[in-house]
Amino acid sequence: MKTDGQIAAESPLQSMQQIGAQLGLTPEELIPYGRTVAKVDVEALRSRLGGFDSPKARYINVTAITPTPFGEGKTTTSVALTQGLGRIGKRSAATLRQPSMGPTFGIKGGAAGGGYSQVIPMEAMNLHLTGDIHAISAAHNLLAAGIDARIYHEDRWSDAFFERKGLHKLNIDPGAVAWRRVVDISDRGLRNVITGLGDRADGPMRQTGFDITVASELMAILALARSLPDLRERIGRIIPAWSRKGDPITADDFGAAGAMAALLKDAFQPNLLQTIEGQPVLVHAGPFANIAHGNSSIVADDVARSLADYVITEAGFAADIGFEKFCNIKCRTSGQVPDAVVLVATVRALKYHGGGAGLTPGKKIPAEYETENVELVRTGCANLAAHIRNVRSFGLPVVVAINAFPTDTAAEREVIRQEAMAAGARDAVVHTGFADGGRGTEALAEAVVAACDEADAASFRFSYELSDSIEDKLRALATGLYGADDIEIQPAAAARIKQFSELGHDKLPVCVAKTHLSISHDPKRRGAPAGYVFPIRDLRLSAGAGFLYALAGDIRTMPGLPSRPGFMDIDLDPRTGGIIGLS
Amino acid sequence: MKTDGQIAAESPLQSMQQIGAQLGLTPEELIPYGRTVAKVDVEALRSRLGGFDSPKARYINVTAITPTPFGEGKTTTSVALTQGLGRIGKRSAATLRQPSMGPTFGIKGGAAGGGYSQVIPMEAMNLHLTGDIHAISAAHNLLAAGIDARIYHEDRWSDAFFERKGLHKLNIDPGAVAWRRVVDISDRGLRNVITGLGDRADGPMRQTGFDITVASELMAILALARSLPDLRERIGRIIPAWSRKGDPITADDFGAAGAMAALLKDAFQPNLLQTIEGQPVLVHAGPFANIAHGNSSIVADDVARSLADYVITEAGFAADIGFEKFCNIKCRTSGQVPDAVVLVATVRALKYHGGGAGLTPGKKIPAEYETENVELVRTGCANLAAHIRNVRSFGLPVVVAINAFPTDTAAEREVIRQEAMAAGARDAVVHTGFADGGRGTEALAEAVVAACDEADAASFRFSYELSDSIEDKLRALATGLYGADDIEIQPAAAARIKQFSELGHDKLPVCVAKTHLSISHDPKRRGAPAGYVFPIRDLRLSAGAGFLYALAGDIRTMPGLPSRPGFMDIDLDPRTGGIIGLS
Repeated sequence: MKTDGQIAAESPLQSMQQIGAQLGLTPEELIPYGRTVAKVDVEALRSRLGGFDSPKARYINVTAITPTPFGEGKTTTSVALTQGLGRIGKRSAATLRQPSMGPTFGIKGGAAGGGYSQVIPMEAMNLHLTGDIHAISAAHNLLAAGIDARIYHEDRWSDAFFERKGLHKLNIDPGAVAWRRVVDISDRGLRNVITGLGDRADGPMRQTGFDITVASELMAILALARSLPDLRERIGRIIPAWSRKGDPITADDFGAAGAMAALLKDAFQPNLLQTIEGQPVLVHAGPFANIAHGNSSIVADDVARSLADYVITEAGFAADIGFEKFCNIKCRTSGQVPDAVVLVATVRALKYHGGGAGLTPGKKIPAEYETENVELVRTGCANLAAHIRNVRSFGLPVVVAINAFPTDTAAEREVIRQEAMAAGARDAVVHTGFADGGRGTEALAEAVVAACDEADAASFRFSYELSDSIEDKLRALATGLYGADDIEIQPAAAARIKQFSELGHDKLPVCVAKTHLSISHDPKRRGAPAGYVFPIRDLRLSAGAGFLYALAGDIRTMPGLPSRPGFMDIDLDPRTGGIIGLS
Repeated sequence: MKTDGQIAAESPLQSMQQIGAQLGLTPEELIPYGRTVAKVDVEALRSRLGGFDSPKARYINVTAITPTPFGEGKTTTSVALTQGLGRIGKRSAATLRQPSMGPTFGIKGGAAGGGYSQVIPMEAMNLHLTGDIHAISAAHNLLAAGIDARIYHEDRWSDAFFERKGLHKLNIDPGAVAWRRVVDISDRGLRNVITGLGDRADGPMRQTGFDITVASELMAILALARSLPDLRERIGRIIPAWSRKGDPITADDFGAAGAMAALLKDAFQPNLLQTIEGQPVLVHAGPFANIAHGNSSIVADDVARSLADYVITEAGFAADIGFEKFCNIKCRTSGQVPDAVVLVATVRALKYHGGGAGLTPGKKIPAEYETENVELVRTGCANLAAHIRNVRSFGLPVVVAINAFPTDTAAEREVIRQEAMAAGARDAVVHTGFADGGRGTEALAEAVVAACDEADAASFRFSYELSDSIEDKLRALATGLYGADDIEIQPAAAARIKQFSELGHDKLPVCVAKTHLSISHDPKRRGAPAGYVFPIRDLRLSAGAGFLYALAGDIRTMPGLPSRPGFMDIDLDPRTGGIIGLS
């Protein structure tokens, strides 16, 4: 079979006007960025439609069982389903996250789908796209520079000096600066750094660090903001530092929020690309799914849901993480409710949950994954069943999508289907989108249409209410979704709960930062963990994005490069000037 | 008078197709980036024209006398002259550097010209533009991450492990990593940092630092590369680190150069904008003028010179720096020679060189700068005369452009004209481009046309030959242009001269990194310094860009933010969604 890069390169691109026209977008509502990507002018469209509050599309979230370190083809399935819906005559569109360049150049490669189910142009999607992530880096680091400069100048100059400039001292606690810096590269050496060495004018010496840009609170804000004024206000509410008295200091207090919003003005407009079969794809925002909510932007969904008939959106990680946050954070913020949920499963991952040997990228895949082993799959279906129950706890119908691999056997797939139906799935369908594109996804598309036709928005329910206490919200997630018997609030977290409650931030939704390799907090617990206590180690406040996040384990916010990074395979083709080696 | 932002906002924008058509660019040769900026498809144009080796335009470099810390309006004059040429019926175009966002948010503000001589859209020019600087940050930091990751993995794994991956150990000396990281923000706290703290997997602990992105060698490469293959080769030749044995390790040795070139593929295409009077402006690359050569890209000049009749290009800092490097580095690389040179002078700066009181941004301007003082101007003209002599040493005609300020008097301007003519200028003309746009620059345009008509390419000569020794090249600049009696090679520099000569890099041009506030190395020496010894403290190698750079004094490669940063004035207008407060 051809490589992803070859398939993408051989797929003819429709013009952006053609793609936009499928959604009824006028040329004036498209802002070209290069020849094969456009941004959608959200304000022009909002003005023509009179708002985004009456969307017409069916709204389908694609999530997955607990993945192996290889991933189970969620993006491929999302793109395949969008193509499959197109093939059965539905006006479909996908809304996806923009990938970070860190993984593109590191281990994982690109994130535009795979095989015959890809978003094109894949170079644009996987590299700079229209610069949204770069804009976030710039806005994030502007605030970081502003904080250190303010500490330096406040230490150097008198109160009167500041007053003459129309300012007053913020009395920042250098030990309580919560705002790190960001870079969109996997760079282990930047995880923990000391800044401000040199002489006095080189700024206050502090220990701090860098996160990968997609972990920035600004990325979560971009994904949740409803409009430019909302974006501006959320940025102003960010609390990047605390005073020596323990009071919060906001981005507005630093006078930086306006410039940060100005830097994100263009980034707020969603990016329009296409599947290799010509359906529109809006690629916009890409927050982490641990310390943030892991879903593409509300505004891209607003656009797609106002114009298409079926909108496929993908959430990060498995259904206990990205899908839960899709409902409890994104949908709660947008006021919109999904019609159906697609849960991606693979024979490989279910064998892993059933007790297969460990899987490590770069190493040989053990034999049980390459030959039939129905019992391993059946045992592993405990994980599938747990996710089906979790999705159904929101009152939503589940269609299981079995992402076909060449090594699967019919018996292995059949046991997945049986176990899925037994656990309450509305349907379970094999698709071959990777090998066959939309043609291999027609049955899945039909199943999803049928599920949507029976959807009942009134049956939707959240896992907790905003009025619940922080502890009760966390307990609801741990016991209701993660299979735990209870939660353990550790001392650091308890102190934060008290502090944030006193500051009036206890009515925000909670975002749990935990491993994606288990439904529990412990990556070693495969299958459907139960009978354990879920630990809450610490709690943080994303006051601009509008959620609290709880840390349950060590969460890496800066990946590292492997011994042979993916960048080694990438180059310019000297004959054509094109990019080669991207996957 | 209106602010720059108001004037820019009120100026109607012509479509990019209209601007391109002025140059004879077809719609297929323009790549849109947003609605008001395009990139020029260099390869499509090169192919249609059969190359860029027979340009038809007159080629005019705009430089200046030694400036005060306020700058003397070189960009404003460049834009005004482009507009003035348009008004007298000439097909003109400008090629300018892309400004860094560091100064935009710090002290200086934007760099799109001023008053009625501006490049628009000024928000695009001053903020992200099409993301070229972001692309350089990404490519630069990818290599930095690759170096630290390689040190980490080489320390951790065996030779055999690397061989199994098709690699061999590079044996990098962690104390001899020359490649810092970059960010396009003024951030004093990043000048000197320790990276790699944390646990072992967080990478090797090293002291290093960040430069502002425009100081990256990649920016100099972007400005000097003739084609994408040339860009790729130059990146591969960068020496970011040295082995423990003292051997150079290149970006190609790290396997990163291909991915870096892929990241810069779009950045290589020049950006097309317009003056407020509708002339085309190519904005492309913006290397520092101290540690690099301080000129916009060769490829943008190739495009403009192939299509316009008069091309105005601006060099950084004064004629002893940016213009010298324009000739000895940029023109030598491109093989193209300018026809005439415009030297910008102001009454204010000449009073400063004549002994006026010190000038500090943000503080009140002393009285002698606001009232007539002909003698102060006349004394200061020593600086003007030195620059005229310097430009004429290249065999080029000089037109002095007196950039008018409201506080100038006729007598003050007249003494500048007299002194300029006495020093060998071909002409000296007052312009009021800031207040009047092209209408105020017609006389200057006529003078420039006349100078070009008498230009004789055969009279052009470099300051040194590439075959000269490193010492002789430096001596030629110091004694021939800076007024020094001799140079002093300090011990660190002597060791580098020996090392680089042994490695065969002694035939490269030399780029002197010195203060821009004096013709000498010492910012306190105003006017026309003479009778001193010019010190060479150290020497560095930009093997990819293709020059050596000599350090004569402390050169800041990372600015800091002031106590009240410019970002405080910038915001989104809640009514229009537009950006306000940019200047």
